[in-house]
Amino acid sequence: MNLILLFPEDFVATDRVLLSGRRLRHVLEVHRAAVGQCLCVGEAGGRIGRGEVLRLDDDGLELAVTFEREPPPPLPVTLLLTLPRPKVLKRVLLAATSLGVKRIVLMNSFRVEKSFWKSPALVGEGLREPLILGLEQARDTVLPEVLLKPLFKPFVEDELPALSVGSTRLVAHPLTERACPREVFSPVTLAVGPEGGFIPYEIEKLQEAGFLPCALGERILRVETAVTTLLARLF
Amino acid sequence: MNLILLFPEDFVATDRVLLSGRRLRHVLEVHRAAVGQCLCVGEAGGRIGRGEVLRLDDDGLELAVTFEREPPPPLPVTLLLTLPRPKVLKRVLLAATSLGVKRIVLMNSFRVEKSFWKSPALVGEGLREPLILGLEQARDTVLPEVLLKPLFKPFVEDELPALSVGSTRLVAHPLTERACPREVFSPVTLAVGPEGGFIPYEIEKLQEAGFLPCALGERILRVETAVTTLLARLF
Repeated sequence: MNLILLFPEDFVATDRVLLSGRRLRHVLEVHRAAVGQCLCVGEAGGRIGRGEVLRLDDDGLELAVTFEREPPPPLPVTLLLTLPRPKVLKRVLLAATSLGVKRIVLMNSFRVEKSFWKSPALVGEGLREPLILGLEQARDTVLPEVLLKPLFKPFVEDELPALSVGSTRLVAHPLTERACPREVFSPVTLAVGPEGGFIPYEIEKLQEAGFLPCALGERILRVETAVTTLLARLF
Repeated sequence: MNLILLFPEDFVATDRVLLSGRRLRHVLEVHRAAVGQCLCVGEAGGRIGRGEVLRLDDDGLELAVTFEREPPPPLPVTLLLTLPRPKVLKRVLLAATSLGVKRIVLMNSFRVEKSFWKSPALVGEGLREPLILGLEQARDTVLPEVLLKPLFKPFVEDELPALSVGSTRLVAHPLTERACPREVFSPVTLAVGPEGGFIPYEIEKLQEAGFLPCALGERILRVETAVTTLLARLF
């Protein structure tokens, strides 16, 4: 936790917050902060600043907070990710959030197990947790938007063209000669398939929607390694 | 397991292997292969080929193997990594191996907890497992060499200059303006510190050994995300 992310309900006054639960335990056990010490804080969706420890005990952490600077710039990317298994999803969401991705679409594919769509990792706190951890990791404050698209065809045919308009459309596909472009910097919509790759029908549909297949070489990477590698090359 | 890595003790004839344990279970439960089917195999340190399933039951997996092509090229990098906690170490070793790193030096830093050096993840099978999983993931066959350097000063002063000779020497350091170079392709020795970064004394020592500090921007990344991002930019 390199930044303590603060939400409206944490504020007991305009410049004072009171924290309990996970954030309190982390500051007690990992930071081992003392009264008077300053910790990095950020307003969810807002600015970054400092929180001076006023009180810290088993009952709560009270901070006097001031905010002075903007969070780091986001990556101009929409990440389309076929839904991985819940444990992998959490790691990918955390990594992508820490890298500055602000829109993540979890989509279906023939190779996605149906049961994954019923995971608690897709609902409420289960979904928010890795995003918050990613922001706390990277010292960012702006939560990514996560969209769930459990039907492949209607999503790709009816929604994806508008959702990706004006961006470079790329789909990572291991069986392609074309290398993933580097240092694009302009907006990109990047689709990353399951480990076995999208099936040919899905690649066709994505190509019809304007997506260009590109690859990272002959090595097959874990989803989280592939996503990080692609983002590092593109931006 | 996108490739079944084979070791000398697996061979019951020059073109036949008999597997049990983890690899058998994986083929039974995940691949659900049938007799006659072909699986991707590789000789540890050697070529990649195909293994035709001759027999598959709870007692063993027998394959008739042929080898035809070389493994993917390695990355020309030596990765110096301050020893992370064991769970993180496993993930970083797996990711780095899957990306093609062939020499990894686990080194000390002021911010490394002493107990980490006593972890079973540094010995024998504990150390080999994530490397093998990384090769199986990326369809590679050549195990990386892992060196343990638990003393910072003698390593950096006496060994590192010779170990990194002829390479571009970089140290990832969050407090630097200089961005990590892209598409270097020539040999690199890359030092990655603990999450809090190397301490100033350590950065000084690394600079004396010819290392140039460079950074990935203002976001603080998890070690595994940082290592993957750095390798993706450099190569």
